[in-house]
Amino acid sequence: MEEWWTCCYPGVVVAGVWALRSLAPWWPPHVLYTTVSLPLLTVASDMAQKLTAGERESKLKPLLDDSWTMVDGRDAVKKTFLFKDFNEAWGWMGRVALRSEKMDHHPEWFNVYNKVEVTWSTHDCGGLSSKDINMATFCDDTFKLSSK
Amino acid sequence: MEEWWTCCYPGVVVAGVWALRSLAPWWPPHVLYTTVSLPLLTVASDMAQKLTAGERESKLKPLLDDSWTMVDGRDAVKKTFLFKDFNEAWGWMGRVALRSEKMDHHPEWFNVYNKVEVTWSTHDCGGLSSKDINMATFCDDTFKLSSK
Amino acid sequence: MEEWWTCCYPGVVVAGVWALRSLAPWWPPHVLYTTVSLPLLTVASDMAQKLTAGERESKLKPLLDDSWTMVDGRDAVKKTFLFKDFNEAWGWMGRVALRSEKMDHHPEWFNVYNKVEVTWSTHDCGGLSSKDINMATFCDDTFKLSSK
Amino acid sequence: MEEWWTCCYPGVVVAGVWALRSLAPWWPPHVLYTTVSLPLLTVASDMAQKLTAGERESKLKPLLDDSWTMVDGRDAVKKTFLFKDFNEAWGWMGRVALRSEKMDHHPEWFNVYNKVEVTWSTHDCGGLSSKDINMATFCDDTFKLSSK
Repeated sequence: MEEWWTCCYPGVVVAGVWALRSLAPWWPPHVLYTTVSLPLLTVASDMAQKLTAGERESKLKPLLDDSWTMVDGRDAVKKTFLFKDFNEAWGWMGRVALRSEKMDHHPEWFNVYNKVEVTWSTHDCGGLSSKDINMATFCDDTFKLSSK
Repeated sequence: MEEWWTCCYPGVVVAGVWALRSLAPWWPPHVLYTTVSLPLLTVASDMAQKLTAGERESKLKPLLDDSWTMVDGRDAVKKTFLFKDFNEAWGWMGRVALRSEKMDHHPEWFNVYNKVEVTWSTHDCGGLSSKDINMATFCDDTFKLSSK
Repeated sequence: MEEWWTCCYPGVVVAGVWALRSLAPWWPPHVLYTTVSLPLLTVASDMAQKLTAGERESKLKPLLDDSWTMVDGRDAVKKTFLFKDFNEAWGWMGRVALRSEKMDHHPEWFNVYNKVEVTWSTHDCGGLSSKDINMATFCDDTFKLSSK
Repeated sequence: MEEWWTCCYPGVVVAGVWALRSLAPWWPPHVLYTTVSLPLLTVASDMAQKLTAGERESKLKPLLDDSWTMVDGRDAVKKTFLFKDFNEAWGWMGRVALRSEKMDHHPEWFNVYNKVEVTWSTHDCGGLSSKDINMATFCDDTFKLSSK
């Protein structure tokens, strides 16, 4: 979670509970707190956060060692996948498409015949997040299956 | 939400808070309640529930009036979609597949060339739930686009 | 090629050349013959023909030894493919769909989540043809890749 | 068909027939001619040929009037298609993929979420051929269906 969010969270909760109490003074405290916290935590858990220095060492580096490269001038990674033919490439793209839609995190990708160039970056946080790590890993894992 | 769940929910929360308080007596009450409620509500919101009589009137009936039929001997609906050719059918199936994966609710479907027979039912609750209504409606909406 | 066709072919060519010569008497013989033969051969090479007894021994039997079974009351084969999940199943289905469209020979298939039941038979000749052997083999080959 | 081919065709056929006659002198002339012509015509009909000036006026211009643009420094056309979301885009891409594989003529395409940039050009002839016109038209026709 991004730093400003961690700092602000308690303040936002207290302000929210205060506001809600004036609207519904008869609600018991735990109901007030749950009502305020729940949507905040849901939003927070969905918010992508840029990888920290530690995560870049532990999670990003293994990808860069496995043919992923940083995109010039952007906090993004890309890799070119080569298949036997279009049929094999498209079967794999179908799997990535399905996962992308499920994770609500979509690639920038270019395809011609048996070649697919995939770029991962997270628009929300303007750079690489753990979502990109997950999807890049999924690409690698399914590629290993799809192509012998 | 199914009835037994609605009845049990307050009891489960109180029991959970009681147990957690013995483990972490220094936590303030609102933290205890949030910690207990959050996973319960998350699970609950994911649990499919059989359509009520009212929902069957308001949500299921419109589908049955639009060519969906009940499956013999099951609480399930099915419909046959006819396309111009396999190409048009497959484009549509791709959309339904993507949505199914996103919603984590998958069809039983049979295809041959330009024909797709789709059945919706919810395994978890052993019958029709609002997930089926949503997916059947998605099928109809995208079918109207895909074919003329 | 079916027997009646093999028998009739020379007669059809001669009749066609005779007819064409009366329309275009100035065409040299090889042009006449090519003009008549070409569409006939094209049609013939596209016509599916039921497997002969010999082909059933040499081509069908290996499939029946590899989990394909004859469909009750039809000259057709079917097999059930089990995948890890819907994602893996759908990636494979995409490959089969692409090949089907290219070969202009489509499956009867049923899917629910990680399971795909595929039936192959050739409508044109009312039974199994070499197209079915080819597509069933493609299913097996790509399945072996797709699932570990 | 490209010009050199049209010029060479009779010579190639005569040479082929001459060669074949020395190998199989007992074959009647029409068999010799068919045997030689058939593979030549099959190859020829598969060979992409650059659009002529006339075809550029009659077939390419309508595309350029419908948002297709020439690619800088290449004899190729491109267009950007915008959809409602990834689901709609992917359903359409599935249709184009299927047709590409059937026609054995594949796009260069880039996708991110609801946007698809498609480029058509024919590798074999180093520029635009009628295959590109056909596929670009297919893109337009199916796009009109897919997106309201």
